[in-house]
Amino acid sequence: MYFASDNAGPAHPAIMDAVAKANTGYAMPYGADPIIDEVRAQIREIFEAPEAVVYLVATGTAANSLALATFCQPFETVFCAPVAHIHEDECNAPEFYSSGAKLTLVGDAPKMTPDALRTAIENEESRGVHGPQRGPVSITQVTERGTVYSIEELTALCDVAKGFGLPVHLDGARFANALVTLGCTPAEMTWKAGVDVVSFGGTKNGCVGVEAVILFDPKKAWEFELRRKRGAHLFSKHRYLSAQMKAYLTDDLWLESARMANANCARLVEGLREAGVTFMHEPQANMIFCAFPRAAHQRLHDAGAAYYVWSGSLEGDDPEEMLEARLVCDWSGSAEDIDRFVGLVKG
Amino acid sequence: MYFASDNAGPAHPAIMDAVAKANTGYAMPYGADPIIDEVRAQIREIFEAPEAVVYLVATGTAANSLALATFCQPFETVFCAPVAHIHEDECNAPEFYSSGAKLTLVGDAPKMTPDALRTAIENEESRGVHGPQRGPVSITQVTERGTVYSIEELTALCDVAKGFGLPVHLDGARFANALVTLGCTPAEMTWKAGVDVVSFGGTKNGCVGVEAVILFDPKKAWEFELRRKRGAHLFSKHRYLSAQMKAYLTDDLWLESARMANANCARLVEGLREAGVTFMHEPQANMIFCAFPRAAHQRLHDAGAAYYVWSGSLEGDDPEEMLEARLVCDWSGSAEDIDRFVGLVKG
Amino acid sequence: MYFASDNAGPAHPAIMDAVAKANTGYAMPYGADPIIDEVRAQIREIFEAPEAVVYLVATGTAANSLALATFCQPFETVFCAPVAHIHEDECNAPEFYSSGAKLTLVGDAPKMTPDALRTAIENEESRGVHGPQRGPVSITQVTERGTVYSIEELTALCDVAKGFGLPVHLDGARFANALVTLGCTPAEMTWKAGVDVVSFGGTKNGCVGVEAVILFDPKKAWEFELRRKRGAHLFSKHRYLSAQMKAYLTDDLWLESARMANANCARLVEGLREAGVTFMHEPQANMIFCAFPRAAHQRLHDAGAAYYVWSGSLEGDDPEEMLEARLVCDWSGSAEDIDRFVGLVKG
Amino acid sequence: MYFASDNAGPAHPAIMDAVAKANTGYAMPYGADPIIDEVRAQIREIFEAPEAVVYLVATGTAANSLALATFCQPFETVFCAPVAHIHEDECNAPEFYSSGAKLTLVGDAPKMTPDALRTAIENEESRGVHGPQRGPVSITQVTERGTVYSIEELTALCDVAKGFGLPVHLDGARFANALVTLGCTPAEMTWKAGVDVVSFGGTKNGCVGVEAVILFDPKKAWEFELRRKRGAHLFSKHRYLSAQMKAYLTDDLWLESARMANANCARLVEGLREAGVTFMHEPQANMIFCAFPRAAHQRLHDAGAAYYVWSGSLEGDDPEEMLEARLVCDWSGSAEDIDRFVGLVKG
Repeated sequence: MYFASDNAGPAHPAIMDAVAKANTGYAMPYGADPIIDEVRAQIREIFEAPEAVVYLVATGTAANSLALATFCQPFETVFCAPVAHIHEDECNAPEFYSSGAKLTLVGDAPKMTPDALRTAIENEESRGVHGPQRGPVSITQVTERGTVYSIEELTALCDVAKGFGLPVHLDGARFANALVTLGCTPAEMTWKAGVDVVSFGGTKNGCVGVEAVILFDPKKAWEFELRRKRGAHLFSKHRYLSAQMKAYLTDDLWLESARMANANCARLVEGLREAGVTFMHEPQANMIFCAFPRAAHQRLHDAGAAYYVWSGSLEGDDPEEMLEARLVCDWSGSAEDIDRFVGLVKG
Repeated sequence: MYFASDNAGPAHPAIMDAVAKANTGYAMPYGADPIIDEVRAQIREIFEAPEAVVYLVATGTAANSLALATFCQPFETVFCAPVAHIHEDECNAPEFYSSGAKLTLVGDAPKMTPDALRTAIENEESRGVHGPQRGPVSITQVTERGTVYSIEELTALCDVAKGFGLPVHLDGARFANALVTLGCTPAEMTWKAGVDVVSFGGTKNGCVGVEAVILFDPKKAWEFELRRKRGAHLFSKHRYLSAQMKAYLTDDLWLESARMANANCARLVEGLREAGVTFMHEPQANMIFCAFPRAAHQRLHDAGAAYYVWSGSLEGDDPEEMLEARLVCDWSGSAEDIDRFVGLVKG
Repeated sequence: MYFASDNAGPAHPAIMDAVAKANTGYAMPYGADPIIDEVRAQIREIFEAPEAVVYLVATGTAANSLALATFCQPFETVFCAPVAHIHEDECNAPEFYSSGAKLTLVGDAPKMTPDALRTAIENEESRGVHGPQRGPVSITQVTERGTVYSIEELTALCDVAKGFGLPVHLDGARFANALVTLGCTPAEMTWKAGVDVVSFGGTKNGCVGVEAVILFDPKKAWEFELRRKRGAHLFSKHRYLSAQMKAYLTDDLWLESARMANANCARLVEGLREAGVTFMHEPQANMIFCAFPRAAHQRLHDAGAAYYVWSGSLEGDDPEEMLEARLVCDWSGSAEDIDRFVGLVKG
Repeated sequence: MYFASDNAGPAHPAIMDAVAKANTGYAMPYGADPIIDEVRAQIREIFEAPEAVVYLVATGTAANSLALATFCQPFETVFCAPVAHIHEDECNAPEFYSSGAKLTLVGDAPKMTPDALRTAIENEESRGVHGPQRGPVSITQVTERGTVYSIEELTALCDVAKGFGLPVHLDGARFANALVTLGCTPAEMTWKAGVDVVSFGGTKNGCVGVEAVILFDPKKAWEFELRRKRGAHLFSKHRYLSAQMKAYLTDDLWLESARMANANCARLVEGLREAGVTFMHEPQANMIFCAFPRAAHQRLHDAGAAYYVWSGSLEGDDPEEMLEARLVCDWSGSAEDIDRFVGLVKG
């Protein structure tokens, strides 16, 4: 019963096979392997973006930080939600890669609203040379609270950004999970809505460790390459990144994997609803936040269930006190584990 | 016939098997997997260093940059050879990770000498607060010209550094190849000689992509962890790095692999010597620099041999003009390819 | 009628005389002039801090950024009020000097409260290596809204910081104005309350351009000197900074000057109160925020009064609409100008 | 007898008077004072560059670092002479301001030659994404060894840079001294030769502390302003910088002052030549390097003469051993002191 994160499950066998299959003979190093060309062709087709440039790195933080640094000057500020991964979970990597840019928190909700974004943007540069200048807007899709921006919501945020001439970054660590929820095309969820650069996640959705950065405008391609190298994220044996991403995109494995994760989560939600559990945020993809009594947490804990107690503490006297949990499902979870988890919540 | 680099060959099957075997069920992410504990125990035993702390990253540049940044203030300078990888081949990554430290080039040879190092160190700080301050000494073993520091040479360099109270970093991207050449223990080539922190390479010697950073003094362990995370080099699915390194260190695979690479190189050297080829630097490990006529280069080129023409150009009228080549062998090279290469040089 | 800022008035004649007097013959450059020794002795006596080290720079932003960088690692975050100068008015200088540290905004009021500070600190590092680590607390005294922390308030904030082992920085761009308000000693407002490092302002209080950074613990003195040089803030003709600071501290000029500024402000407040003006924040030093009708603003504007319309816009139809003003007094303001300003508000 | 540096003498009375005269009433802060407009007009006229943008800072290191950072990406390298101030005397400030760019040392002489520059530039980027990319060329005029590039030499260096599409920075800390030596126009020594940005020094030539950065192409003006603010080099009471620079440029004071410094130096050289002293570098402006016996150094030392013993040490047995001295003259030196110095060398 592992619901702590979608980065703790195994890689999909098809990914692992592709890595093993790539392991024959010599291959040009440092991103000059032949497989990356196939990956580029796949992504351009899938995103209907024949001009897009595509680079691979091994961590989501690298993807986000390099993407933002390429679109952000050190005297600017990045607009993001207060719970954004780039703000809370990357130990100042965006500040590091951007040579000291700031992050401006937009509103106080997990989802940015166009009004809050406009207010935040207008608020900066009221001070001329004294304050940080306006930089990119970064949107997380799936959000860090498991909700999904609709195409309308995404477009409205991009419109605000574009109104100020600002570039838009999409942190798509869970890109596929959001896409499956929305049932739209990758193009609709990105450049058609106004997104300029995407961190396209693979690691959390069945890969060993690979993320693509997709720049729809190739103008900054060379700068990105240099920043990747300078950040020590250019792999010599790059073919193993390419092989993962190629397999991930072949035969819709990426969508299939996300569908399984979301379906697992839906089953979990259904069970928990039956158990009378309250949800902090609307469950829309593969991550949920919900509250149930300490006694249930203790039963789960005793049974070895792994997940984050998000607020409150297992320690405490009152068995009825409500504690929040964060629960994440991946493609590899089993119906059995989910049902067992729900059963333990029910008591 | 691939002699361009030791980062272009396949991973050793035992490494790939270990990665595949690690791919079952859930594992704690972000370096909390159980395999890393085994790796730590292995390295502590192999290096006779029970206090050492060990961290894994995926690229040699990350290992070097993070190791140096942990021992270097932004107002200091790192002492290294003019051909050091950290100076020539990392696109300012050491400057980036150290927040803008300088690199001071020691002497003009591929190997630093104690005298040149002392002169360089004494030269800095003659200017008090105005010049960069003295920072770590970084030694590359195997050097970027394929030569190997003897234990006496290493110790003498470390003694100079220690005389000024400076820490010593060893860039061991080809650590195993040097160790096999010297026939000494890992401890003798590192902390017993005076080294404080090692970039211990796996990628060039049969791994998919993994390097260990070994700090013999655990005092800076937590700072290193934070710098690794901030640099976006902390893998969520860390078990796949751990699995590689564990297999690499098991049953002396790392030494066996280096022995094969060095033996391949020795066979190549022997053949080239017979062919009357001149060597720019004494061949001591798995990388050589040598000169032979343009006509021979052209035969190799026509036959599809891959390697760097290090000085001069294939284009040119004079078939007798001597052009230099850099040739690197890895564990996976075949005697057949080597002999064919030599045959083509002979004409 | 100039109330736009206390950095737009002339330097006090005594300061200017001291600069002129320092202009004879040769003086050792780069902070080795004899006058700085006198300044150090003055500050150690005034602050009852015989161990304190003192450095001069020319801008408040330099003082703040260098002080913070000396106490902050790049993977840490600085705790400050949302309206702090370091956050809003320094164009990412603190992020620059700290090599990319973050700023965490405490609460939503111009004054930090101990509870809000504790909450903010506890909130960080709930995420281990993933989030920014806890760094220094920076307190602005006088606050950016013209209010003054009492000794009790300062001590309570420092106690919270100390409870977490965090250093405390005091941004004292208007140090003297606060001191005059509180009627306490410099020691009470700094190290006795728990402050580790102070930006001690001179520029806004009658100097040409000089700020002292005072470190009560000399341990980081040399690091500060190197950071100052690396930041290009070490003056070659340093004697002119020393001369200003010496004159500023001689015969209580700094206190006298602040008393005049505060008294000017008190006269302004009294007049505006009579005129029925509302104050946004309690006037406690030499800067006030208050609201009065657009018609009054227009009268002032027509008469050439200089100040910031803080919210709202002069343009608009409704003469009765209330617009906020920020008004700052310095030592050089005249009673005549103040009374004329008040008269125009009254209409 | 002070020959240690040209930054230790007093400011010219006309400069000091201008500062005092600027000290009346209120003036708009942060570079919006009316005097800076006059300065801009002066510089545009003097440099025959009606489009040039001009900014003031207080230190030469700030001028150099900000100018370079504005023309240099963090993954690039700056080409300069091994003795360049930016390399030896700024404690990594250029690396800091450029977010970690590298400095590549050109040749081994105090003056760069076009051939050495071309070789250095060609050498970089032979490694594609792996090495630092080519960035600006920085030329020091007067050089750090007291020699002066002729217009032909400057133009030849700029031509090499331009051939590679690289911008050129001139470190003109002693701009006026060089100009007086060459007898050319400011335009000829800068943009007509191919220079893009100049650090135009005032501090070493009679000012209190002011340097102008002149960008001949206004395209990067706003970026420069933001970098200046972020570097904490935007003065609130900016009028005092403006006043210095205005007086410096009025009635050819800057040229007059440099002529006096150079003339003082010429007198010193003449005396030393008569005394049989050897010169390490051709004396061309106001700084010389020469060798004479320890006994003479000791006589000077005993008489209180201040200057740098550049190589060797006063301590030592052999009174005949030759020790090098660095001697710098400023506008304020007296013929009497010079003659007395020469007399003591003669013995």
